[in-house]
Amino acid sequence: MSTLANDRFLRALRREAVDRTPVWIMRQAGRYLPEYRATRARAGDFLTLCKTPELACEVTLQPLARFPLDAAILFSDILTIPDAMGLGLSIDEGVGPRLAHPVRSAADVARLGVPDPVDDLGYVMDAVRLIKQELHGRVPLIGFAGSPWTLATYMIEGGGGDHDFKRAKAWVYSEPRLLHQMLEVVTRSVSGYLQAQRAAGVDALMIFDTWGGALAADAYREFSLQYMARIVSELGNAVPVILFTKGGGAWLEAIADTGCSAVGLDWTVPPAEARRRIGHRVALQGNLDPAVLRAPIPVIEREVAATLGAFGSAPGHVFNLGHGITPDINPDHVAALVAAVHRGAG
Amino acid sequence: MSTLANDRFLRALRREAVDRTPVWIMRQAGRYLPEYRATRARAGDFLTLCKTPELACEVTLQPLARFPLDAAILFSDILTIPDAMGLGLSIDEGVGPRLAHPVRSAADVARLGVPDPVDDLGYVMDAVRLIKQELHGRVPLIGFAGSPWTLATYMIEGGGGDHDFKRAKAWVYSEPRLLHQMLEVVTRSVSGYLQAQRAAGVDALMIFDTWGGALAADAYREFSLQYMARIVSELGNAVPVILFTKGGGAWLEAIADTGCSAVGLDWTVPPAEARRRIGHRVALQGNLDPAVLRAPIPVIEREVAATLGAFGSAPGHVFNLGHGITPDINPDHVAALVAAVHRGAG
Repeated sequence: MSTLANDRFLRALRREAVDRTPVWIMRQAGRYLPEYRATRARAGDFLTLCKTPELACEVTLQPLARFPLDAAILFSDILTIPDAMGLGLSIDEGVGPRLAHPVRSAADVARLGVPDPVDDLGYVMDAVRLIKQELHGRVPLIGFAGSPWTLATYMIEGGGGDHDFKRAKAWVYSEPRLLHQMLEVVTRSVSGYLQAQRAAGVDALMIFDTWGGALAADAYREFSLQYMARIVSELGNAVPVILFTKGGGAWLEAIADTGCSAVGLDWTVPPAEARRRIGHRVALQGNLDPAVLRAPIPVIEREVAATLGAFGSAPGHVFNLGHGITPDINPDHVAALVAAVHRGAG
Repeated sequence: MSTLANDRFLRALRREAVDRTPVWIMRQAGRYLPEYRATRARAGDFLTLCKTPELACEVTLQPLARFPLDAAILFSDILTIPDAMGLGLSIDEGVGPRLAHPVRSAADVARLGVPDPVDDLGYVMDAVRLIKQELHGRVPLIGFAGSPWTLATYMIEGGGGDHDFKRAKAWVYSEPRLLHQMLEVVTRSVSGYLQAQRAAGVDALMIFDTWGGALAADAYREFSLQYMARIVSELGNAVPVILFTKGGGAWLEAIADTGCSAVGLDWTVPPAEARRRIGHRVALQGNLDPAVLRAPIPVIEREVAATLGAFGSAPGHVFNLGHGITPDINPDHVAALVAAVHRGAG
């Protein structure tokens, strides 16, 4: 059914044989690229960049012009949903995101509404359509959203917090009903948002559960995983869905049981062990430590080969980092990584 | 052999039957206690508190006067070793530790010497002896150190860093030989330091590998675990040793294989799964989410019962949090936790 010139990424997500392991990089359109920084400067601020489809399209395509990547990922931010809910988002790339109106009470939760993906987040759908057009079917386009728990964390903390998430985690234990009420609204928002991205043309979807790993095991199932599972189920089988819980290495089996197509692995998870625990019912995506990209190129090549070897030759591996690329990385090192993946384990 | 009035903690570490699950709390002598804050104010600064045996003894005993805990832990800091190495430690409890002379080059590594536990860290051994005397055998005393990798991380970063550990992780991939050379010196320092604590009278030892979870799986084995294993082996069987790698849930089997007596679990690890994976060759310590202590007391009681239930009735469980207690906790909530552990799962 695919009309893509390169559908290696989608084939790997379906655990079909591929001629070489597909590769893309979390945050591949980002600050490590001088051309990104130039567009960003032109836009004036980060949110304008997200909200202007032509600029979002431009930065989405930038890494593809440099590297033979096997997928594009929509340039956007997971906080577009809280922004569309009216929480007053501002993003300073040096400091992190801030919400002027965090959710702190039952009244705040009661006020939350589900944004309309077309009326309130139409700029994202416009960007998807424009990118699909500009891609000319070269590679698939990935859409994405934050997980309900991760978005709720930002919404309660009012920003990135101190990685301790005191307020959000206080709700887990002291206000579980209120938190579920909030997650209900956020889940409907994420589900509708991802369905609209699919309708606009994305070829695959990824849910970023950046802060799921802050939860205890039982709380993770109750407050993060079950809501992601519902979204996966509501999306049906139209496009593959990748779930990524950073710090979720202890829960891989449960994540694979949601019905997703692929599980994202951070770098703490040994690939062979992940495969042994999960079996072959889903694809795996990951998991090179982003710190490797700071090393000399021969080390990058060695670590790529080791990672490919650890994932083994069975179908169903999408090469990626275990977390987003950082702004200090030399683009030449990314080129070396992509070339090494395409050369294979050796 | 024990002359302790309460040896429940040591019995659990040896996986012997106990009348009730022993409990202590990481950072139990700390800022959440008003009496600690008073002593700290009297000392003037944190390091003076660490370096004055009478004051270290006083704060070590404070939580025991309030709660029927089953162990005391030496009040100290993992950075006493870099301090004794002359790296110029200062600790501002609000900001975190800073080292005036971080280790940034081969010349810096070459200059590092192994501190003499008696000459350079005698104040720690004096504190151990004084605490043992003041405890009058009521409960066991735990000594501790940071893991070599965790100490090296602070020494390279010059402080707590940004949790990204860019400099230290750059050494992993770009300067592995230099890092091994440094870890060799730090390992000898930690090993001698823990042996001296044992000689001074501690009943058990714990190694805190706070930043082991920042490493990829292979790098964890090479740069953190193998050095902890060597320390465990050099300590022999005189006292039980607990290893705790925060974020190390993916590597429990390997940690248990070091010869340690117990593995510390953070809150992401489901206890029943840890037991299934490790078997009964070691005791387990942990793993309540510290965030639970912010909840109302009935929730704390419910979560304690659930945790006890999840660990099951087989011998070899020491109740603890999955990480240190935070300064904002109400001491009454700690009292409720300790009482709930002693009442048991039922």
